[in-house]
Amino acid sequence: MGSLEVERETTGWAARDPSGVLSPYTYTLRNTGPEDVFIKVICCGICHTDIHQIKNDLGMSNYPMVPGHEVVGEVVEVGSNVGKFTVGDTVGVGCIVGCCGNCRPCKSDVEQYCNKKIWSYNDVYTDGKPTQGGFAGSMVVDQKFVVKIPEGMSPEQAAPLLCAGVTVYSPLKHFGLSESGLRGGILGLGGVGHMGVKIAKSMGHHVTVISSSDKKRVEALDHLSADDYLVSSDATRMQELADSLDYIIDTVPVFHPLEPYLSLLKLDGKLILTGVINTPLQFLSPVVMLGRKTITGSFIGSMKETEDMLEFCKEKDLTSMIEVVNMDYINTAFERLEKNDVRYRFVVDVAGSKLPQ
Amino acid sequence: MGSLEVERETTGWAARDPSGVLSPYTYTLRNTGPEDVFIKVICCGICHTDIHQIKNDLGMSNYPMVPGHEVVGEVVEVGSNVGKFTVGDTVGVGCIVGCCGNCRPCKSDVEQYCNKKIWSYNDVYTDGKPTQGGFAGSMVVDQKFVVKIPEGMSPEQAAPLLCAGVTVYSPLKHFGLSESGLRGGILGLGGVGHMGVKIAKSMGHHVTVISSSDKKRVEALDHLSADDYLVSSDATRMQELADSLDYIIDTVPVFHPLEPYLSLLKLDGKLILTGVINTPLQFLSPVVMLGRKTITGSFIGSMKETEDMLEFCKEKDLTSMIEVVNMDYINTAFERLEKNDVRYRFVVDVAGSKLPQ
Repeated sequence: MGSLEVERETTGWAARDPSGVLSPYTYTLRNTGPEDVFIKVICCGICHTDIHQIKNDLGMSNYPMVPGHEVVGEVVEVGSNVGKFTVGDTVGVGCIVGCCGNCRPCKSDVEQYCNKKIWSYNDVYTDGKPTQGGFAGSMVVDQKFVVKIPEGMSPEQAAPLLCAGVTVYSPLKHFGLSESGLRGGILGLGGVGHMGVKIAKSMGHHVTVISSSDKKRVEALDHLSADDYLVSSDATRMQELADSLDYIIDTVPVFHPLEPYLSLLKLDGKLILTGVINTPLQFLSPVVMLGRKTITGSFIGSMKETEDMLEFCKEKDLTSMIEVVNMDYINTAFERLEKNDVRYRFVVDVAGSKLPQ
Repeated sequence: MGSLEVERETTGWAARDPSGVLSPYTYTLRNTGPEDVFIKVICCGICHTDIHQIKNDLGMSNYPMVPGHEVVGEVVEVGSNVGKFTVGDTVGVGCIVGCCGNCRPCKSDVEQYCNKKIWSYNDVYTDGKPTQGGFAGSMVVDQKFVVKIPEGMSPEQAAPLLCAGVTVYSPLKHFGLSESGLRGGILGLGGVGHMGVKIAKSMGHHVTVISSSDKKRVEALDHLSADDYLVSSDATRMQELADSLDYIIDTVPVFHPLEPYLSLLKLDGKLILTGVINTPLQFLSPVVMLGRKTITGSFIGSMKETEDMLEFCKEKDLTSMIEVVNMDYINTAFERLEKNDVRYRFVVDVAGSKLPQ
């Protein structure tokens, strides 16, 4: 264990303004407090939300901003109250690094719904310093928001599970949709969508990928082993599949009509939104009422669910489909992600990129 | 038991065209088949949906149309397979008089969600004849869609329970919202809303009536014993009550924004729509996602739930607040209902109106 009193510098890649272009940025990490884990970052996945943040799409961005919330690293130092982790452990950090601990969500172990949660980056920590994410050499994180990566799971494989994976796993578990034999739909085949197909298949579901075009048919059926592929503009097949799905995980992060998808749901079926969309979504009340259908949403998952999900993926030997890139490729990776040109998740090999520590 | 082979005439009040004006209309009832119950109507409640139907608001009206789906009557004759009812019983009929019996909803005893359900009026029965509702001397109804009115409950009191009552009772039961101590909101204080306050209070909930104006405050608090009254334009109180409700029963049958009401819900809270609205409703996905809130809807209730609800109301000594009128007042009643000028449900005293049988 190193000294707990030393503030260390680290270098990450930060956006400086709403252009969203990242460049190296050196900053100070807080001391490793009694509850903290000091982590050397191994790799970090790129999530679509990172684009919204670096470009100030949500109007709440502060710069310089080091994004990245699908972080896998190695424990280098632990605080005096940390019993769960030891130096050398491979661990993960997701979207959140703090919560109030006292509200109803916190007390119910769904701290992701705490109104005072602290985001992994573009937020202010309890010490008044800005939080910075995983595209950096190191992070200091409260142990509550650190999970162990299961033995034998590679860091690059694990990274996308920490946001994309749990984003799908959590609502399927919470809404009672994890038993085998269900018929599910995955709307949109990006980072979250591809994980949705894999997790739903591993739960034993019949999975239909729903897309606006035919472009991803082969990938969905052959590479991801989806059971069916449905183009939303194909009126005949949409009609054929009306009233047939127990749920749809809607991963589309831009405005889209909900009517066609609600019609695909069975009685009591659930449309689960996972994409933050700033334009209002619309639906007709009779479509919902006459099938007691549910429109709901879910936001990542709790630390408990993240642990369960990692074990589930380990047990099912579930792997993500990723493209590993170096840090100096990150701006290009963001550009390609914006054009949906990645199968299906970029993971930055941070340790391999030899950033100054 | 009378002869089962006689087709009888009855007189009801029918709309003839989209003006929605009702006038006496004589038509033939089918023979009382083996599964049928021949009912002399005692009284019938007026529901807001009746207005949509008689005025062809939904574009699916056929004339002449005798509306009325909150029917209480006396059994006059029963078919050979009817064991549940005997002549002289006081019984009720609601919105539905037929279903396929084979689909998943039918087999799960939620036949109100059967895609082949037959409406009590403005529909076509299995014999090819139009169905006609309860503003008439008599009805012939399949026993599956007839319920016994509990001993000691007056027909006029029972009538509004058959649609308005079960419309509230069913979702509270189905969505796990019937235990005491919950905090509920009732949005809109019409026929369904007033029943919502009464049923939710009887379940032991803390009930807030939410309205667009202050007009009904005294009624809500003093006459209906609601615990709180919230005017949706009162930003301070709306903010005060943010994140505080387990559910809202939304009874408003016209377009309204959902955002303000979603904000009132706690984590996992449910907004339950019960009003058919033809304009699309809108919401922002983050409001739903970041509190795992649910927008759903519910359509009346099953026959089983109708029976349970009647027993519940009997046990809790729950009475509806009604204005009893004669049949020749029905057009005025419709006009007043459209202006929301009734506390809270009109019930037509059909038997007392001396229609020709």
